[in-house]
Amino acid sequence: MSHLVRTVEVVEIRFSLFYEHQLPRPWADGREARLYQDALDQIEIADRVGFDAVWEVEHHFLEEYSHSSAPEVFLAAASQRTKRIRLGHGIVQLPPAVNHPARVAERIATLDLVSQGRVEFGTGESSSSAELGGFGVRRGEKRAQWQDAIDAVTRMFVEEPFAGWNSPYLRMPPRNVVPKPVQKPHPPLWVACSRRETIQFAARNGIGALSFSFVEPEDAAKWVDEYYRIIESDECVPAGFAVNPNVCVVLPMMLHEDEATAIDRGIDGAHFFGFALAHYYGTTPHDPGRTNVWEAFEERRAAQGFDRDQVIANAQALRVNVGSLRGAIGTPDQVADLIRRYENVGVDQIGFVLQAGTNKHEHICEALELFGKTVLPRFTEGREEREAEKAARLAPAIGRALERRAPARSLPVGYRMDEDAEVARAHRGPRLRRPTLSDVRHEARHRVRRGLFTIVHNASDEAIERRFGPRAQRVFFGAMARAFDPSMSGGFEGDIDFRLTSADGSAAVWTMAIADGRAHARPGPSRSPAVTLTASVPDFLRVLAGDANPASLLMDGRLKVRGDFELAPRLSGMFGGPSPY
Amino acid sequence: MSHLVRTVEVVEIRFSLFYEHQLPRPWADGREARLYQDALDQIEIADRVGFDAVWEVEHHFLEEYSHSSAPEVFLAAASQRTKRIRLGHGIVQLPPAVNHPARVAERIATLDLVSQGRVEFGTGESSSSAELGGFGVRRGEKRAQWQDAIDAVTRMFVEEPFAGWNSPYLRMPPRNVVPKPVQKPHPPLWVACSRRETIQFAARNGIGALSFSFVEPEDAAKWVDEYYRIIESDECVPAGFAVNPNVCVVLPMMLHEDEATAIDRGIDGAHFFGFALAHYYGTTPHDPGRTNVWEAFEERRAAQGFDRDQVIANAQALRVNVGSLRGAIGTPDQVADLIRRYENVGVDQIGFVLQAGTNKHEHICEALELFGKTVLPRFTEGREEREAEKAARLAPAIGRALERRAPARSLPVGYRMDEDAEVARAHRGPRLRRPTLSDVRHEARHRVRRGLFTIVHNASDEAIERRFGPRAQRVFFGAMARAFDPSMSGGFEGDIDFRLTSADGSAAVWTMAIADGRAHARPGPSRSPAVTLTASVPDFLRVLAGDANPASLLMDGRLKVRGDFELAPRLSGMFGGPSPY
Repeated sequence: MSHLVRTVEVVEIRFSLFYEHQLPRPWADGREARLYQDALDQIEIADRVGFDAVWEVEHHFLEEYSHSSAPEVFLAAASQRTKRIRLGHGIVQLPPAVNHPARVAERIATLDLVSQGRVEFGTGESSSSAELGGFGVRRGEKRAQWQDAIDAVTRMFVEEPFAGWNSPYLRMPPRNVVPKPVQKPHPPLWVACSRRETIQFAARNGIGALSFSFVEPEDAAKWVDEYYRIIESDECVPAGFAVNPNVCVVLPMMLHEDEATAIDRGIDGAHFFGFALAHYYGTTPHDPGRTNVWEAFEERRAAQGFDRDQVIANAQALRVNVGSLRGAIGTPDQVADLIRRYENVGVDQIGFVLQAGTNKHEHICEALELFGKTVLPRFTEGREEREAEKAARLAPAIGRALERRAPARSLPVGYRMDEDAEVARAHRGPRLRRPTLSDVRHEARHRVRRGLFTIVHNASDEAIERRFGPRAQRVFFGAMARAFDPSMSGGFEGDIDFRLTSADGSAAVWTMAIADGRAHARPGPSRSPAVTLTASVPDFLRVLAGDANPASLLMDGRLKVRGDFELAPRLSGMFGGPSPY
Repeated sequence: MSHLVRTVEVVEIRFSLFYEHQLPRPWADGREARLYQDALDQIEIADRVGFDAVWEVEHHFLEEYSHSSAPEVFLAAASQRTKRIRLGHGIVQLPPAVNHPARVAERIATLDLVSQGRVEFGTGESSSSAELGGFGVRRGEKRAQWQDAIDAVTRMFVEEPFAGWNSPYLRMPPRNVVPKPVQKPHPPLWVACSRRETIQFAARNGIGALSFSFVEPEDAAKWVDEYYRIIESDECVPAGFAVNPNVCVVLPMMLHEDEATAIDRGIDGAHFFGFALAHYYGTTPHDPGRTNVWEAFEERRAAQGFDRDQVIANAQALRVNVGSLRGAIGTPDQVADLIRRYENVGVDQIGFVLQAGTNKHEHICEALELFGKTVLPRFTEGREEREAEKAARLAPAIGRALERRAPARSLPVGYRMDEDAEVARAHRGPRLRRPTLSDVRHEARHRVRRGLFTIVHNASDEAIERRFGPRAQRVFFGAMARAFDPSMSGGFEGDIDFRLTSADGSAAVWTMAIADGRAHARPGPSRSPAVTLTASVPDFLRVLAGDANPASLLMDGRLKVRGDFELAPRLSGMFGGPSPY
């Protein structure tokens, strides 16, 4: 694992709000309308007290977790209630089956026009079964669709006319896509990142990283360094026609002068956020219109590590492993301290989630006012100057990066609109490509995880242990080795030991040896493991099935990590685990 | 042709604004932003002075004619600048290749939430080559796609969860589409109508008719009667879960106490609107990003009947055939008189187009203020009472109609979200159906018209006459007979005579005999023609090719109609002519 020299100076930190429009059941009449009106009121306050941006998600069919399915509409409404706050799509789902790329370009440009140039264009792929299944997007193809669509959309902003497209995901003849955005060449681009690898991916594409993995400041340091190293390297080939070098991390937040009050007001929301995210992005069964996520949360929150009392008991400071669960819930001093730690490692922006679960509108408004009065002023001095310095420092590298991007094209010579030929071409041949080997592997992994889930979900520890004897272990670790995704390993080579304890005090140990881009499982311990994970059989399986939260197990000591601590959070991704974006 | 007994009482009339966001070339920097900000300012005035609704189109790639490609964004912005004005999509394009039905439902609901229940949900198919070719929508399929999508979308509003869809145009598994609209069961539905037949179609679907054909009040009478007769008949099977019995006609408008000033300020805009509409909805060649529509307008407006001087000379009153070209451009008394005539025939709403061509923002604002002060008050007295009477009168019929609509469904028993199976199903088999015979005929008609266009466009009268000798006439009228679409004839049976005059004073006469749903062409006059159309050969061909405006030819006497005057405007549609929606 390479250890990078830190090249980033402390530059500045900006603050944003992040909205999912959560609405736990039961749903009384008028609650959705209230939710939306409250959010607009909150954003008006945020604009007034000095927040820099508001991010609004695009999620479909994720009842309770997110009723924000048309952020283009909500942000446009917010544009007329605010003067200077920037309006971020966090994110637009780019697979063309969800949003036709021309419609995306049109909406971004129109939002930029009505807001007089305040749009931040966040992009992503989504990865919940509700959304991929709902729109028929293949899991294995969505990254390729993102890459294809962002190229097309950014060309629609700058090409007059857009010179047309012919890919496995989009066929479109030349057209002048109007209107054009106010910001030239286009609003700043971002991509949703849930893993370190996606942050590298953001850097390679020269766009901002919106990180949703609730990462601790000290872990963020290496990510940020790596991000800026890539931005300044030849690896950076911008996806758009401008580079947006920024890293934003998202955290739950609630603020009050009294710590216990802050926790009391904010912790259920933060916990529901985490629980419902795991519900939709893991493999928990969901019956549309029937499953009651809030009830499930109340029943199972403690079991999944979202234990209210536990948090209050540990609440001296927002340090080590508390951040992941508690985020920025605390007093102005505590929150300012946490922010300073992110600022110190070069994070550019923190996106705060206040509207979550059943958090109350009045409390959110109070927290925003308090933040504007007591926290924000500590971070604004000299900010513009430092940002100007950062821009000047990166300018030469960005100039070189932009030269690597394929330029805007002209209209093909002799092209004239021709409906009949164009429609025929759109329908010719298979509209979407055949699944590749990678798709198949991707989808197989998903099926394995789902199978595992049905074994552990709602089963007792004893029942799980009984079913996970030596033979099952062999099958399981074998499948895990086959699911290994070298692109997610960040170049790691070495041994990972899994130490599975049983109720009777015995332990089974398995070694996963990673070398040359492959993983190999064998029983017994390694001589020199890079990392050793210890957990009970049931907890281990629950984590891998997406039915338990590893951070919370870590926190209450049910999951122990020895060795390369940094590797632990990446394990799920390396073996095909879930990601919320 | 059946003559109906008028059953409609004068009920009420409401006023709306209608926006295309027109932006003639040349395009200076910042013009699009100005256009959008001006429109928001205008709508704020309209809200204050008492307009009832603002309609915003959705058009794609129609540079100069319409830069309103994301009305969902614009209307959401308008929602926060206004208090009570209703916000209409005029219209949402429903073919799924343009807008996925779930995205449509989500956006409508979100707009209804941020506006606190002020949405009017206009729908349509679009029919420009720029849009159909751009999104790959088959001309022959778009009506079927509309019918399919409106059924799905309205179910998404009321079904919890939406129970899924499997049609040739949309496959979607069960999902709870959130949020839900404020208005229950959903916002009022409308459909864009460009021909009398579409208005019947609106009535059969139990939804409002948004008529864009600039129809004279006295012609509108029969349309309105027919509309309400169908609404109250067994033919009405609602497309949604509520009936919206309303007819709205759209007219260009400009108002000033001095008539000449009103014309001076508004006529170029109205004319450019008509010219650019013909440009995009006819078969005029268009090079994306290159064709300069405003320049073409300035060069050819007089030739196409958009003659500025002609209008001023004829401007005593807004009567007979002036409405089509001049609309509601005049003094408060003239405009009030025109409105009264629409009101008298039972039109429910007039949508005024003020932002058109190069019309000036200040003039539009002045006209809106003047309208609110001098015209609107003449129509508000007793309006609520009359509307309540209308609602009470229609209630029993609407109740019966709603019983004919297939009800909301429940979640299929045992259904559980299953990404893998759902995605596989979405990609199984041909995604879109094969073209039918009707598609082929539809597309063939389009090709014939395009071929005709290349003959007449920019050709001199002499050249056209030379190419249209007896043999060409035989071929041409034969093709026209084959293109006859009985569904557009409104049950007409009888003979139509075409009298084509040549420069040398001679005339060729052809009879198109219509009986039993077929048309037959033969040379020579009919004994008892239902209608006789007389025009020069070049003018006749230009009208049929979409290269000249029949209303303007009528107005300056170049096209003469004898007999069933009402049949004339339907001829284009009967023989496969164009429509803007």
